[in-house]
Amino acid sequence: MSEKKYAIGIDIGGTSIKHGLCSDDGDLICWDSVDTQADAPKEKILDSLAEILEINLGIAKQKKIEVNAAGIGTPGSVDIQRGFLMGATPNFVHWRDVPISEYLEKRSNVPVFVDNDANLMAFGEYMFGAGKDKKDVICITLGTGIGGGIIIDGELYRGSYFSGAELGHMTIHYAGRKCNCGGIGCFEKYASASALIEDYNSLKPPSPCRNTKQIFKLYYKGDPLAKKAVDQYITYLGAGLSSIINIFNPQIVIIGGGVSEAGEDFIQKVKETTRHRTMSTSFNKVEIAAARLGNRAGMLGAAAFALRMLQKSGK
Amino acid sequence: MSEKKYAIGIDIGGTSIKHGLCSDDGDLICWDSVDTQADAPKEKILDSLAEILEINLGIAKQKKIEVNAAGIGTPGSVDIQRGFLMGATPNFVHWRDVPISEYLEKRSNVPVFVDNDANLMAFGEYMFGAGKDKKDVICITLGTGIGGGIIIDGELYRGSYFSGAELGHMTIHYAGRKCNCGGIGCFEKYASASALIEDYNSLKPPSPCRNTKQIFKLYYKGDPLAKKAVDQYITYLGAGLSSIINIFNPQIVIIGGGVSEAGEDFIQKVKETTRHRTMSTSFNKVEIAAARLGNRAGMLGAAAFALRMLQKSGK
Repeated sequence: MSEKKYAIGIDIGGTSIKHGLCSDDGDLICWDSVDTQADAPKEKILDSLAEILEINLGIAKQKKIEVNAAGIGTPGSVDIQRGFLMGATPNFVHWRDVPISEYLEKRSNVPVFVDNDANLMAFGEYMFGAGKDKKDVICITLGTGIGGGIIIDGELYRGSYFSGAELGHMTIHYAGRKCNCGGIGCFEKYASASALIEDYNSLKPPSPCRNTKQIFKLYYKGDPLAKKAVDQYITYLGAGLSSIINIFNPQIVIIGGGVSEAGEDFIQKVKETTRHRTMSTSFNKVEIAAARLGNRAGMLGAAAFALRMLQKSGK
Repeated sequence: MSEKKYAIGIDIGGTSIKHGLCSDDGDLICWDSVDTQADAPKEKILDSLAEILEINLGIAKQKKIEVNAAGIGTPGSVDIQRGFLMGATPNFVHWRDVPISEYLEKRSNVPVFVDNDANLMAFGEYMFGAGKDKKDVICITLGTGIGGGIIIDGELYRGSYFSGAELGHMTIHYAGRKCNCGGIGCFEKYASASALIEDYNSLKPPSPCRNTKQIFKLYYKGDPLAKKAVDQYITYLGAGLSSIINIFNPQIVIIGGGVSEAGEDFIQKVKETTRHRTMSTSFNKVEIAAARLGNRAGMLGAAAFALRMLQKSGK
């Protein structure tokens, strides 16, 4: 009946900007990534985003595909009505108070919609990944920090002023580790991938690990230090998941980031620990699952978000 | 233009059942309370609820007021479509799996709507109290435990299966105190009124306090043990509030229960502690305020909820 619609999806990450051409049913026609110049002036970043749009529009033209919109996920709080990044982001020096949509629409002549990156990852998993066919979905991404996305009744929940869903900044120890956000004992200081690496290395292993993959390799080999670090990590993760499930009573909690690929034994232990800590009325109804789209979730979510916004705006 | 509408509001608490006749603009025409027989068989509790409806219908008749509906707040998870209490409640021995609406509608011939008591307290404050004119409202009630109510865009959020909003069961210490819910380090084990009383008495004061009023009286007199307990309590409360604000980015957090009446100095300190722990984007936009309706919030919320449900159902 209705023709397929297409959008460009862009996911601005700390190290790379991923971008691709996506259909409204979740096909990624092509994609690529470029280095993020996180310390560049904002004009320079905006310029490379405009180039990315041009490249994708060029590819689309070649393929005789009409591009209806572009969606962009960026760290930070975004006023989605204006496509405006409000304030700063922790890891980008000059990337603050940026009228992203306004600038790019002038340059590219395609409607541009912007939202927070963690929101759009969650939206991608909800539309095309582990959260498909669900309507109340929570997504946490365990990386350098912890990103959170909340989908209630099929819509992203952003709070009253676009700053909510900071699930990485729930307190899991009131007198715990200091967080960059100014908080104390934040979830991400314990359960991010970075925290696991730091905790493992603090146990003074013969050679330090640089990523969680190495740690889980040792864990599955039965290495006692890796076991100690991972067991403790599971407790931290369970504490945060328990809060999330008690608060939201969601249908599914999706765990993204490299850690979510750490194998069935690990996921099972996370579920078991969470079960013990969570009210049974909510735990019995929730699915805990690894993300399915990997690092494509942000792009696909950005594109799907753009098409939805376009539809709502009636443009 | 339109005539006033009226509903009976009933709030089932651990020690008393409060009930009254309320108008749709928040006037409480009359109200009363009876003892809750928390260990009685459920038929007996249902019977006394039916009597309460009869009494209020009688008063309304006398006053020539037409009663459009009745709303009931009960502890536990409630399927609001069926007015059915699902499973058990911690403090009522036999009050489990109760078809509340079905039973009472047969007896009283008035539409009966049921929801969780903390939800309806929050709804009362949202409609007629501290949350009036706001649309994203979080309410926590500090009592024996901590009840939570979440209002998003003017609607109560209950989760995907009516078991959400358990804000008292967020973890604030992953390796902390054991909670009755099975969890560890739950917010209510630290920041409920009961927790404050227990913590104060554990400092071995010359004479133990039985309620928070006594503790705050000593606190304002400069008693060092009360100061120690209250200062620690403020940290606990701040940790939980910080999580709530980072997650929901609400317009207002309303604090109910006796503790919220502990004076401006206390409330100021709670705000200050919360500010330090919370992301500024969200903290700068939030109001933290004491509840305004006291123990009438549950009744008023129940009545307002019933009228809204009636309207939605088109009955």
